[in-house]
Amino acid sequence: MSLAIISPGKNPDVWIEEFKSLAPDLSIEVYPEITEPEQVEYAFLWQHPEGILSDFPNLKMISSMGAGVDHILRDKTIPESIPIVRIVDEKLTWSMTNYVVMAVLNFHRQTPRYQINQTRKVWDMSAPELDVTIGVMGVGALGKDVLEKLDFMGFPVAGFGFSEKKDFPFPYYSKDQLGDFLKKVNVLVCLLPLTPETENILNKDLFAQCNPNTYLINVARGKHLVDDDLLEAIENGQISGAALDVYREEPLPERHPFWENWKIAMTPHIASVTNPQAAAPQVIENINRLESNRELKNVVNRSRGY
Amino acid sequence: MSLAIISPGKNPDVWIEEFKSLAPDLSIEVYPEITEPEQVEYAFLWQHPEGILSDFPNLKMISSMGAGVDHILRDKTIPESIPIVRIVDEKLTWSMTNYVVMAVLNFHRQTPRYQINQTRKVWDMSAPELDVTIGVMGVGALGKDVLEKLDFMGFPVAGFGFSEKKDFPFPYYSKDQLGDFLKKVNVLVCLLPLTPETENILNKDLFAQCNPNTYLINVARGKHLVDDDLLEAIENGQISGAALDVYREEPLPERHPFWENWKIAMTPHIASVTNPQAAAPQVIENINRLESNRELKNVVNRSRGY
Repeated sequence: MSLAIISPGKNPDVWIEEFKSLAPDLSIEVYPEITEPEQVEYAFLWQHPEGILSDFPNLKMISSMGAGVDHILRDKTIPESIPIVRIVDEKLTWSMTNYVVMAVLNFHRQTPRYQINQTRKVWDMSAPELDVTIGVMGVGALGKDVLEKLDFMGFPVAGFGFSEKKDFPFPYYSKDQLGDFLKKVNVLVCLLPLTPETENILNKDLFAQCNPNTYLINVARGKHLVDDDLLEAIENGQISGAALDVYREEPLPERHPFWENWKIAMTPHIASVTNPQAAAPQVIENINRLESNRELKNVVNRSRGY
Repeated sequence: MSLAIISPGKNPDVWIEEFKSLAPDLSIEVYPEITEPEQVEYAFLWQHPEGILSDFPNLKMISSMGAGVDHILRDKTIPESIPIVRIVDEKLTWSMTNYVVMAVLNFHRQTPRYQINQTRKVWDMSAPELDVTIGVMGVGALGKDVLEKLDFMGFPVAGFGFSEKKDFPFPYYSKDQLGDFLKKVNVLVCLLPLTPETENILNKDLFAQCNPNTYLINVARGKHLVDDDLLEAIENGQISGAALDVYREEPLPERHPFWENWKIAMTPHIASVTNPQAAAPQVIENINRLESNRELKNVVNRSRGY
């Protein structure tokens, strides 16, 4: 019996260390050097090569290395019978919220303007704050925390999601009310899960419904955004700029126009990074639960997509 | 009877408009074109020329245009008998807190690093967050709000002030415990009032007691900071960088080395700007109180300095 870590391009050492300290008897294999595939009962994945899991005939459970599971669900070769679980980490939420609040404040307080003025030695005190209303698309654990923190700071906020919600503590707009939602806000935060329904949702049709000079913050997945549509919306002023942490292709290729667009503030998918100290115990606990036939924690609903 | 607005270099039009709408019968004069100095009973000041108030023999009350009054108290020609009042505005607090939280988050999330990486098209996911503990010097209305917001966001915080405090809701260090306070924190926010005791408090002796790579945020007054000592502390790594909104001389002269130091993020004294809609009613109310012999609101204690 072993756990296979499959995360091409990521150094697995910190994970191995955590797993070893929590479960000294657990065998760990690291892709692509897997010596005994028939021994692999558990797989711990981040952007695995599609189809690879069929090498493991005795696989019993798949765990994502993060909160997102779109990178697992896109692999249609995975049998329906194998449960998929994900990491739920308060630190993930904390980091994500801090990143979003920072991006909101840098728009509200016009950081790029003052940076340019500093390089030009210009002292301009006029109109130092923009009025902002923040709309959060996706109101799961992450989106709700962002709404709570911004609300506590005294900012007007609204949430948007695909399902109907009763008694949501903030103004809430569901699927059919996207246009109304967009008219309410001028900062748009994407925290949606990536599903067939949400892929490419940040496109020219959506930008056309935004208030002029709306600011976009995408911290969900690169595939939510149609890159060319964003560049065009920035060009025509519908979107005033963006903070992006995720991209359709990662690392973002050097030739991509985002790199040189000064209205786009880029980070390399670091808004919220899974913390091995918090996540490894969740993996081990689910292994223990499976072995003793108890219910798994944080199981993914495949038809919902998260 | 008239109100004199004395704020050289600032456009008084929005103030005049607010005062006129609140008190249509109030005569308003604007320095330096004051036609009937003996009629001036109220003065509304921002960085007035020292000594100028002796031109008004019938002056009854002085109001600051903002929360700070150091610009008034430095003028020793003002008779002790004339009360000085200041503006207390929730919007001032809101803006100040947002500015400070933004500066804290830009340090925590290493914004300058990612900006440089973007210009170089470098994709570096390593170590995306710095551990921060935020120390706030000055725990009046502004400092306390900063502590509350950062605490709610889940950051460890501590306060420092000159007086003893009981039942303060956050870890608190008084005057004699400055060294202990500095050892606890690695982000230092100055929100102290400017008094003889606090002038030049941000100096090389203080920086020497800071943890290595402490980040400085000065949003109080330029005279709290010894400019050369900051540059030296940045040079030797005791201070990792600074966000500055206030300067010893404003506008900051073009030759000043702060402009070109990329470890200093500068804004032109706009962290928190008095909002005429909120402040003008406070001035009018104090005029009404004085005229009907009622107690004034937000009176400055001159010996305390704020």
